[in-house]
Amino acid sequence: MTTEDRQLKLGAFIMATGHHIAAWRHPDSDADAGHSIDHYRGLAETAERGKFDLVFVADSPAGWDGDKDAETRSRVSHSAHFEPVTLWSALSQVTERIGFVATASTTYEDPYLLARKFASLDHISKGRAAWNVVTTGADVSKNFSIAGHPAHASRYERAEEVVDLVLDLWDSYEDDALIRDKQSGIFLDPDKVHKVNHHGKFFDVAGPLNVARSPQGRPVVVQAGASEPGRELAARTADVIFTANQTLEDAQEFYSDIKGRLAKFGRRPEQLLIMPGIFAVLGGTEKQAQENYEFIQSLVHPTIAWSILKQYYVGVDLSGYSLDDKAPPLPTNTELNKSRLKLVSDLAARGLSLRQLYLSLATARGHRTVVGTPEQVADAIGEWFNGGAADGFNILPPVLPTGLTDFVDQVVPVLQRRGWFRTEYEGATLRENLGLERPVNRFVERAAAPSQRSA
Amino acid sequence: MTTEDRQLKLGAFIMATGHHIAAWRHPDSDADAGHSIDHYRGLAETAERGKFDLVFVADSPAGWDGDKDAETRSRVSHSAHFEPVTLWSALSQVTERIGFVATASTTYEDPYLLARKFASLDHISKGRAAWNVVTTGADVSKNFSIAGHPAHASRYERAEEVVDLVLDLWDSYEDDALIRDKQSGIFLDPDKVHKVNHHGKFFDVAGPLNVARSPQGRPVVVQAGASEPGRELAARTADVIFTANQTLEDAQEFYSDIKGRLAKFGRRPEQLLIMPGIFAVLGGTEKQAQENYEFIQSLVHPTIAWSILKQYYVGVDLSGYSLDDKAPPLPTNTELNKSRLKLVSDLAARGLSLRQLYLSLATARGHRTVVGTPEQVADAIGEWFNGGAADGFNILPPVLPTGLTDFVDQVVPVLQRRGWFRTEYEGATLRENLGLERPVNRFVERAAAPSQRSA
Repeated sequence: MTTEDRQLKLGAFIMATGHHIAAWRHPDSDADAGHSIDHYRGLAETAERGKFDLVFVADSPAGWDGDKDAETRSRVSHSAHFEPVTLWSALSQVTERIGFVATASTTYEDPYLLARKFASLDHISKGRAAWNVVTTGADVSKNFSIAGHPAHASRYERAEEVVDLVLDLWDSYEDDALIRDKQSGIFLDPDKVHKVNHHGKFFDVAGPLNVARSPQGRPVVVQAGASEPGRELAARTADVIFTANQTLEDAQEFYSDIKGRLAKFGRRPEQLLIMPGIFAVLGGTEKQAQENYEFIQSLVHPTIAWSILKQYYVGVDLSGYSLDDKAPPLPTNTELNKSRLKLVSDLAARGLSLRQLYLSLATARGHRTVVGTPEQVADAIGEWFNGGAADGFNILPPVLPTGLTDFVDQVVPVLQRRGWFRTEYEGATLRENLGLERPVNRFVERAAAPSQRSA
Repeated sequence: MTTEDRQLKLGAFIMATGHHIAAWRHPDSDADAGHSIDHYRGLAETAERGKFDLVFVADSPAGWDGDKDAETRSRVSHSAHFEPVTLWSALSQVTERIGFVATASTTYEDPYLLARKFASLDHISKGRAAWNVVTTGADVSKNFSIAGHPAHASRYERAEEVVDLVLDLWDSYEDDALIRDKQSGIFLDPDKVHKVNHHGKFFDVAGPLNVARSPQGRPVVVQAGASEPGRELAARTADVIFTANQTLEDAQEFYSDIKGRLAKFGRRPEQLLIMPGIFAVLGGTEKQAQENYEFIQSLVHPTIAWSILKQYYVGVDLSGYSLDDKAPPLPTNTELNKSRLKLVSDLAARGLSLRQLYLSLATARGHRTVVGTPEQVADAIGEWFNGGAADGFNILPPVLPTGLTDFVDQVVPVLQRRGWFRTEYEGATLRENLGLERPVNRFVERAAAPSQRSA
């Protein structure tokens, strides 16, 4: 595929009042946005107007114990937002083309119910559903009657099993299993309905799923884990990766590493799209953009600043430090998200002060930050898109809804003018717009080539 | 309250192609209706045009093992429909006043995730969500990695715990917990956010829920179990009961029994609405209605007839019987839904043939069947509504969408003319339309009267 043929994929990563931790205090935001369906509806409509491929919400299945002082002063660890599939299902009826990526946990959700809700969303949205597979980093075990939060390795072992099981459940029905012939009274062909007969380390599930095969064949599978097991799981099973990279070099390394892993799973490079996050602060001039950036950074309360730092300095006594002291090295023996921790350690190692460190983290939790004019933001996108580092981007607006509206009105036209981004949707389903094939049913595939059956 | 003041409550019990088991073969139905969001959207819009209080879907969280021959020839045990909250969330955006009752299982769903999805739906629908609490009669344990289907008593013991836990989770946040003061940077008042600290026989859940208190305070709670533990659970915790009664006498007994149980839980009779099901077959004349009824009954394939009978004659060899033989007594030592079994036993005891028995069950699974003109159906409704047997009705259309459209166009105007039913919605939320108060937060209530704390 030549550079001219390649088209950027764009996602809108949506989060209540915006991605900046102090966004809720910004005059442009509605502090109640996290509980307003009309707010989310407006965002989905704006993203669709901008011809975005998809909207995306992150998620934790439950709240966790946060720092009480910090909770008082910030969007908190519990009250943030709606169950993602429920949210996107609502918005599927007021949009026509945009895809919906909902996050759901392989550690805390039941795989049969998970498969069912996503298959339902794919039918209800007429082929626009995607599952962002996460193992859940935060310990929410106290809400689920289990002894404790599983460790990273155990979570990934379980995730491998859950993803395979869910993919099988989605294929329980072959596309033509439902005959529905009124005259003869034959409703279905039972030979085209498959039990999954899954007996794994974590789950025993007979199947079939109680939903027919969905318009996309299967919902799109998205992953974000950048650890070694995360990369392997993604290379084997994902259609899209959301990633966080700060530098072109890191992004290129990640991009070529992932694309290089596909062949061993019998996959081609174009079957897995890599979309780094980008936190873009816009302004009419470079100076104005910088002022906009400094203004929102000024809204971070000191209590929040320390709570951000404490999330990474687990077990480290910071009481003797001021925010202007140089950031000490980070501990490494924690259960924190490995890829996130690496990003923060890299920042600390550059000799930043604690203030500079928390300000870096307040913006976009380790995602690439670009401050500039629409042309400059387009340049930053093009550099990675054309530099072997990205197939598209997940846009993290600092403040919502204005951050998304500005991006759609100011940056998208530049990307379109440069020939990198669509002016109209290519297809009706998310897979079609992402340029991904509709997958062959796994049971049909196995019957055709029994030796290919995966574990 | 005088007869003139009382207003009927109406629910539309929606099920794919309709409630008659052969509805999918009827020329008026779209055999694919179960997987068509546009079909369900049309039904919700029709019900709202008819000023119905609510739409309702039954549910099983997973498929179960059915009779293979019967599955081939009928809507099957697995492929029926969408996850209910996902379905209703979609339709909340294309309607304004109708309430949405979604069924969810206390036996197979996780209580925290269940509480969260319903609280999300209540926000997203702006106060129109309701949970139909079921313990799940069918054995679907093979899809959930558990040793077997819990027995009736165990399911109800668990249901008692789950309902209390979910009610607490919904009240995690007091109504004014979120302060969101941009100037001071105070987002919430942590003293108004409550952990639930639930440690029960089946679950340990710390809380709080990760969704703020919802527009109705809590979603409306609906129950349908008519067994002794089902009646107690409903009297203690439900806002609405859906019930199945065949005769006025049975309905009066049920109505007065339930209303009589409320006082011991500190509740008033009007705080729990009783809505029996009614399967109405309409015709312009009585003769036409009867012909419509006979036509749809004629669509039941003999394979389906025997499979219906086998569901109730568990362990009984029916191979020596013909459909014209008198129905033998039913076994009673089964794990079948007790109230359903009683209805079927009563039918069998009337000396029906097996053919008459399956035809009775094919129509509406034990619900009251009325065949007649719109005036006659209105008479049947009025007899129970004005006779101490019902606060409203759950309408089971034989074939969809026509069965609902006909009811709205032909029966609703008669009910309105007689002064029994609204011509415009009274309120914005489901609770307001049902005439139910917005509940006081349970944590606030306990703080005001600590001795009232329930177990």
